[in-house]
Amino acid sequence: MSLARFLDLADFAAAEVRDLLALAERLQRHPQPQALAGRILGLVFLNPSLRTLASFQAGMARLGGASFVITPGQGTWALESRLGVRMDGSAAEHIREGLPVLASYCDALGIRAFAEGKDLAADLAESNFAAMAALVDKPLINLESAMNHPCQALADWKTLDDLAVPDRARFVLSWVPHPRALPLAVPAATVHMAAMRGHEVVVLRPEGFALPPAVMDKARAAARANGGSVTETDDRAAALRGATVIYAKEWGSTAHYGDAARDAELRTALLDWQVREQTFSSCAPGCHLMHCLPVRRNVAVADEVLDGPRSVVLREAHNRLVVQMAVLHRLLS
Amino acid sequence: MSLARFLDLADFAAAEVRDLLALAERLQRHPQPQALAGRILGLVFLNPSLRTLASFQAGMARLGGASFVITPGQGTWALESRLGVRMDGSAAEHIREGLPVLASYCDALGIRAFAEGKDLAADLAESNFAAMAALVDKPLINLESAMNHPCQALADWKTLDDLAVPDRARFVLSWVPHPRALPLAVPAATVHMAAMRGHEVVVLRPEGFALPPAVMDKARAAARANGGSVTETDDRAAALRGATVIYAKEWGSTAHYGDAARDAELRTALLDWQVREQTFSSCAPGCHLMHCLPVRRNVAVADEVLDGPRSVVLREAHNRLVVQMAVLHRLLS
Amino acid sequence: MSLARFLDLADFAAAEVRDLLALAERLQRHPQPQALAGRILGLVFLNPSLRTLASFQAGMARLGGASFVITPGQGTWALESRLGVRMDGSAAEHIREGLPVLASYCDALGIRAFAEGKDLAADLAESNFAAMAALVDKPLINLESAMNHPCQALADWKTLDDLAVPDRARFVLSWVPHPRALPLAVPAATVHMAAMRGHEVVVLRPEGFALPPAVMDKARAAARANGGSVTETDDRAAALRGATVIYAKEWGSTAHYGDAARDAELRTALLDWQVREQTFSSCAPGCHLMHCLPVRRNVAVADEVLDGPRSVVLREAHNRLVVQMAVLHRLLS
Repeated sequence: MSLARFLDLADFAAAEVRDLLALAERLQRHPQPQALAGRILGLVFLNPSLRTLASFQAGMARLGGASFVITPGQGTWALESRLGVRMDGSAAEHIREGLPVLASYCDALGIRAFAEGKDLAADLAESNFAAMAALVDKPLINLESAMNHPCQALADWKTLDDLAVPDRARFVLSWVPHPRALPLAVPAATVHMAAMRGHEVVVLRPEGFALPPAVMDKARAAARANGGSVTETDDRAAALRGATVIYAKEWGSTAHYGDAARDAELRTALLDWQVREQTFSSCAPGCHLMHCLPVRRNVAVADEVLDGPRSVVLREAHNRLVVQMAVLHRLLS
Repeated sequence: MSLARFLDLADFAAAEVRDLLALAERLQRHPQPQALAGRILGLVFLNPSLRTLASFQAGMARLGGASFVITPGQGTWALESRLGVRMDGSAAEHIREGLPVLASYCDALGIRAFAEGKDLAADLAESNFAAMAALVDKPLINLESAMNHPCQALADWKTLDDLAVPDRARFVLSWVPHPRALPLAVPAATVHMAAMRGHEVVVLRPEGFALPPAVMDKARAAARANGGSVTETDDRAAALRGATVIYAKEWGSTAHYGDAARDAELRTALLDWQVREQTFSSCAPGCHLMHCLPVRRNVAVADEVLDGPRSVVLREAHNRLVVQMAVLHRLLS
Repeated sequence: MSLARFLDLADFAAAEVRDLLALAERLQRHPQPQALAGRILGLVFLNPSLRTLASFQAGMARLGGASFVITPGQGTWALESRLGVRMDGSAAEHIREGLPVLASYCDALGIRAFAEGKDLAADLAESNFAAMAALVDKPLINLESAMNHPCQALADWKTLDDLAVPDRARFVLSWVPHPRALPLAVPAATVHMAAMRGHEVVVLRPEGFALPPAVMDKARAAARANGGSVTETDDRAAALRGATVIYAKEWGSTAHYGDAARDAELRTALLDWQVREQTFSSCAPGCHLMHCLPVRRNVAVADEVLDGPRSVVLREAHNRLVVQMAVLHRLLS
């Protein structure tokens, strides 16, 4: 398998994902410090980043390549993405010029562009990311879009491999509190990844926070193809019983998408959805706590869990580097 | 020809420019991925950048070198440039320390410092950039100063070569609208480049936006030496007839330089100077639209032109990388 | 000597420092452009930087390695460092996740984290930097902490070597004016370095600006071990007589630490502590002016001194690159 784009784990069969992870393992064991000599990765961040920013630069360097970082609006002109607009506002440059130009300077491009968080249908359609992707004629990596984060999902799959979590194990994606509404990219990518890996996936979330039907349907199709299942509930006791993994994640109300006031109202009553040690009382022995980071300590997850043996969040983050090197190798070598 | 500084296309004879462009072509056809191994380029941006920021980093990497980026005031102390001043304001560091120090860390330095836009005589004298250049004892590249942008001019020359635009063709530098007054660096560099290339150059601009006599005189001398001509007019119909290239560019009123209110008053009546498809009705067949980017769509140039076959703006931007690699090679190899 | 951490010059014997400086000299004379091929340095800046930012990137590149830069709050999530806190404020990520993750992407990490400037005891205890250092299981470099700046101290030691300043010479660390209270990191590192090098060290400062006893005691112990001495005075005439070096440095009132109003009140009466040419009238012939930069011209030091032959500030800054390459070589090769 050679890659032209890495935009969505759902673009690949489970066997192809396993191939990619096998390459990641090989590169860990047998480094190839010259594999991407002379190759250049452009990284465009329309939103903040820590892991992605550092790990892609480090990954290119470890493979002998180089990278440059562009953060529009911060030392670089703000970018307009709407079509047909009269550009007399603050944005000095349109993506229709900015992105093809950046693509022409590099061998592969990564783009991060979070959800707008106003119109759920528009975010589900990935209209913003798709418009940008259509402008790039080079290998392209989704560094997190409105509804996807394939690099995180791939790293999490590898983490489950590292921990020898069996395919059929119960994997609970649990909504957790946060001061404000966060995007659906990671929950959507996670439920799909866990379904593809064959898990008994349970999406545990309060009323008003159901994942969109399009996300659930796509994950269920992946589950059917790979021997797993995907269900959804707001019953914490039922969901957690026998779980081998709790994947904690914050997201905004889908019932009141884009309505910050209603969303805030809902979440004030949900602070006890925080993951604590007692959350694991009915889980399987050794149940793991996963989270994509950054995590709000003692809001989303308690110190006692993050600092204890259940937490594998640092391994997940390190695996970002490991699996992305495989993606870069496939795209560029 | 070896280079010590790349500050102004006017520092070179036309034959020397053609030599540099021939090197750029050779490096495109026969990459030299180790030519600048171990060499370091420092990039200092006192103003925003996208193309320059990305293309210089990519260019160094493609030649085996490395670069670092400094953006004063953004993770780095703000820089003072006035002499003799008592530094009790917000700037923590003076260019008299900052620039020699940065130069001592690298093998070549690039500096971007836009016009102040207050006093035309001071900006024409390039007093700010000259003060900085005098502090740097390493090969130096002008990444855009008050009145110059030699990297853009060189890329544009190559674009005209790529398109096989004949030396004697009519080249119209046309003022176009923008929400506010922009510097004269690109129009000044462009009129000079086109004159050096031997074109019949027409500067088309409204009353109040004439290019300064010093700029026009310098360009006319270059035209005389290279068989071309430079004229100026506010008559759009006359200027555009038979044009092979329209180079659209925004700039501020020179009659009211530094007077934002008077400038804004003038430009409200000039919105129809936007370049549209009908602008080309009396031009030569296949007349090209050039622009240095970033461009305000549907303010400076209409979508229909930027998205149509006349536009060569992406080629110009890509040529920034191509020609700058030749500049870096001459300065550093 | 191989290094695991470079956090404080006081962690080394004077002979070990001289070894490191000898390596720096060797690397200057015999470059090793592949010594750190494939190695990656992560640089985390919680505060602004110019010299450190540029020289560490350049130093890694000159040794064949690569680096990435993280500036939390600027394209990256703001970092929380307090333990046990409920993270419902603006910081999205805790150092307990952020730092181990970054460390896992690189081969060595550098961290800059200035003093909080509120509680002297907390800053003296380096509690903030120590908390971060404890989270990093890779070679670690202090890029300036609350009370230390070992890279600056090492560069200054080399500068004294370059200038052949004898061990027993009189070295005056002189307080100079600044618009506001600055941290104690450089004065503390400087007094210790000069004591270790065997100088007759005089700390010259106004009433209310005495260095903390812990700093002075540590420096005096170093002086005893290396044949020097450390005294403190507010008598300018007595201090400067016969001095071979004046090291000018700004710092905040220690008597009113964290009290900006009282500090400002004190310093209005101290503007004449600025170093001028006449300051050197009773010094030894050829007395040098040192400063770590950035320096406020005509506030801390007059133009006439910075632009004259006494000033060695540019050499000090260049030596940052030179000595840090030796540190990187020891940590990573």
